[in-house]
Amino acid sequence: MAGKAASVDPDRSEWDVIVLGGAAAGENVAQYATQFSDLDAVIVEAELVGGECSYWACMPSKALLRPADVLTNGRHVPGVSSLVAGRGLDVPAVLARRDTVVNGLDDASQVKWALDTGIDVIRGYGRLTGERTVEVVTAAGDSRTLTARHTVVIDTGSCTTVPPVPGLAEAGAWTSRDVTNVHEVPRRVVVYGGGVVACEAATWLRALGVEELTVVYRSPDLLARFEPFAGRMVADQLRDAGVRLLPGRSAVEVRRADPRGTGVGLPHGGEVTLRLDDGAALVADELVLATGRTPNTQDIGLSSVGCPDGGFLAVDDQQAVRAVSGSWLYAIGDVCGRALLTHMGKYQARIAGEVIAARAAGRRPTDADDEPLSVAAGHRGSPQVTFTQPEVGSAGMTERQAREAGVDVETAEYDMAGLAGTFVMREDYVGRAKLVVDRATDTVVGATFVGSGVADLVHSATTAVVARLPLSVLWHVVPSYPTASEVWLRLLETVRTRRAAGPTP
Amino acid sequence: MAGKAASVDPDRSEWDVIVLGGAAAGENVAQYATQFSDLDAVIVEAELVGGECSYWACMPSKALLRPADVLTNGRHVPGVSSLVAGRGLDVPAVLARRDTVVNGLDDASQVKWALDTGIDVIRGYGRLTGERTVEVVTAAGDSRTLTARHTVVIDTGSCTTVPPVPGLAEAGAWTSRDVTNVHEVPRRVVVYGGGVVACEAATWLRALGVEELTVVYRSPDLLARFEPFAGRMVADQLRDAGVRLLPGRSAVEVRRADPRGTGVGLPHGGEVTLRLDDGAALVADELVLATGRTPNTQDIGLSSVGCPDGGFLAVDDQQAVRAVSGSWLYAIGDVCGRALLTHMGKYQARIAGEVIAARAAGRRPTDADDEPLSVAAGHRGSPQVTFTQPEVGSAGMTERQAREAGVDVETAEYDMAGLAGTFVMREDYVGRAKLVVDRATDTVVGATFVGSGVADLVHSATTAVVARLPLSVLWHVVPSYPTASEVWLRLLETVRTRRAAGPTP
Repeated sequence: MAGKAASVDPDRSEWDVIVLGGAAAGENVAQYATQFSDLDAVIVEAELVGGECSYWACMPSKALLRPADVLTNGRHVPGVSSLVAGRGLDVPAVLARRDTVVNGLDDASQVKWALDTGIDVIRGYGRLTGERTVEVVTAAGDSRTLTARHTVVIDTGSCTTVPPVPGLAEAGAWTSRDVTNVHEVPRRVVVYGGGVVACEAATWLRALGVEELTVVYRSPDLLARFEPFAGRMVADQLRDAGVRLLPGRSAVEVRRADPRGTGVGLPHGGEVTLRLDDGAALVADELVLATGRTPNTQDIGLSSVGCPDGGFLAVDDQQAVRAVSGSWLYAIGDVCGRALLTHMGKYQARIAGEVIAARAAGRRPTDADDEPLSVAAGHRGSPQVTFTQPEVGSAGMTERQAREAGVDVETAEYDMAGLAGTFVMREDYVGRAKLVVDRATDTVVGATFVGSGVADLVHSATTAVVARLPLSVLWHVVPSYPTASEVWLRLLETVRTRRAAGPTP
Repeated sequence: MAGKAASVDPDRSEWDVIVLGGAAAGENVAQYATQFSDLDAVIVEAELVGGECSYWACMPSKALLRPADVLTNGRHVPGVSSLVAGRGLDVPAVLARRDTVVNGLDDASQVKWALDTGIDVIRGYGRLTGERTVEVVTAAGDSRTLTARHTVVIDTGSCTTVPPVPGLAEAGAWTSRDVTNVHEVPRRVVVYGGGVVACEAATWLRALGVEELTVVYRSPDLLARFEPFAGRMVADQLRDAGVRLLPGRSAVEVRRADPRGTGVGLPHGGEVTLRLDDGAALVADELVLATGRTPNTQDIGLSSVGCPDGGFLAVDDQQAVRAVSGSWLYAIGDVCGRALLTHMGKYQARIAGEVIAARAAGRRPTDADDEPLSVAAGHRGSPQVTFTQPEVGSAGMTERQAREAGVDVETAEYDMAGLAGTFVMREDYVGRAKLVVDRATDTVVGATFVGSGVADLVHSATTAVVARLPLSVLWHVVPSYPTASEVWLRLLETVRTRRAAGPTP
């Protein structure tokens, strides 16, 4: 899968910054560390530069989900609905578009970007072998040793967790990589898991025409990390679309007579049977594993620098690995376990890149206002959009997370179908919004929006949470009419009305 | 057009608050003045409670525009495009949906809302006859005199400006009311004007099947109040859709042999000819006037309280009419001329309602933080969305407005087609964004987003402008990937890169 090698002097062994892993965050940290400094950097990547997000996650999944979303909206907009009535997606066109979006799994443009930006790229698998030292093994089996003058950054990402279910590891199940790169749509699919990957995959698989689609998950609700109504609304829509949901179940055994191996976009074998803890047996043509993520830290030489192999890497607010002294080892993205989201990894990379450049120049890492560089503010607002139907957008903490963090909160909820802006958007709009307010400071610490088209509404909530805006300021942030943003006004009015009625217990 | 009279005691003549005009803002000011106070209020409305926005502006226009937008997006999303290829909107379905959205021009539900909220409604045309005194004349010609114990609020709105072009006033031209309530789609239409109403009307008229559509406007660009690229991008798309644009022209004469009168949703006569100042003559079946708005202040008795009749009413930041002493007369919405937008009128109404309640109770009008109530902060961020293709969303000031206000500004622009979030949204995405930054405070004072689906992205900009957030804070507001919100990151990076390159002149 690796593309052709970039042209780096084969005898060169020293860079200021070595980045293990060339996914989006790895690219960003190299860019930010070198862009306005004298540092140089090299990215070591065994697969595709651009990483999981570009080829096997965010981008292909959105390419598959967007047509389904547009078609569903069309079905609910009079004037368009009769044009698409009774018609399904043009599946070959959707898959071809997905192939375009992932650039045919060719990373040439990303490698070109790196080289144009002054960042070197080495194809191969990198492992730490000691302080500031990395050994790279190429696909051909050659090895070379690199030394970092200043810094090594780990951005090796994560992979699908394979739960210890008998027979599962040998069954050739599809991971997120396979299901985003689907080429032939199976007739029967079981999705195991109830989180973001599971919900998005179920949405596009059904839209692409999977006839028998079952989602099995251990928690009582889908999307268990979000406000409870989010998962329930997504579940309702999946059920309406003909998806069978089996909550509160675990797999106890997987059997497949003919597991023809693993690989991206391929059918992995014959009929597969999943036996559940309630005794039921599900038979399908493919099994999709969406059971969480495991950081790729098992085999990158961490023990050579005194860190345990495997597990998430604890970092400080400048992304330096806590277990290593001397601030020469950083980690960004999924390996930190702080927020397994491309945009948060890229944000960590921007901050870490500036920190690395400053420290290499002997400067304290501070911003333009002379405040210490830190990812704390950004993580306070950490946003996420799940592109299901309806979409689930959130920023900051859920009510439960806030209470668990000891915040004394007040909440407000509003039915997004009750807005003029959603009324003109389509018929049968389904949605709900919630604000989580810290009573002590009267600021918003979290917000959730569920509904069609809420993806960009989230950014207003992220802004409010990061900037710690009090409700008295938000009261003057007027939503344009008629848009879905008016839900802000309704939420604030809900708080106002309750407060006017007297203190809540 | 007026619905059945609400049941108000016909002999009652005194209320705490009298609201002249029952449009959205009028409803809101009555609600906010009475909701948590001992005050009562009456709305005096000659037409429909809910006003222009609900029946003849925002709501029907969006009901007409949304199907066109969904269909255009569908044409650019592989997987859906082949389903709708070569097909136009189902026009009867679009018009029927519009009728549903305007509730068949029946305001019963809005009257019910008012009564349920404890607000009285009197059908009739109201005029001031002296301090705190209003005379109401019903459709039947009866009159009654009302007295306000505390306050009169004017929310009589605005109507289409009719420029002094010979023959125009007699030609039975369509106003915004007619074109939003179109029932039979004319074959040939000329739109006179180049602002928001003109651009939106041209968009839906063409989508509904007008064959020969010409837009004539005096300014060199469409949407002249916005950043220049906004109007140019909308012009490109209108031209691509087959609309003829004639910028820099004025009408000098209008002739219509058979003007069968005026009225909503009706063809107003036979062939109409518009002669332009360049000598050209345009012949059409209907002429749409979109030449600005005139406040409805000519015939509401202002001279009886020492104000000139006609023109906009100057108000202070609590919406009290400046020319009248004693703080008993307020004005909200279009009549103030401050921002002729439903949401800004409603915002003014919320603030004015709280001010009225506080003053009637002998309290200083302050918010929960003991700050004086004022509309200044909200107007600083004043947002607007124009639902053209592409959409135009803005908050705060344009670069030109900021410079004219004496602000030393720095700007950044970004091609929204260059984002991952818009790349997965559709093919051939067209868009552009701009930030206007006050150098002295390093805060955003304005932002413009042009592109498909930017309507709710605006709210993040409104938040930043109202809260006066410095770029150093916005830097930590992470956009969710892949959404259009990532344009924020690109804009901030643009500023960062320029600053790193050294001071700009």
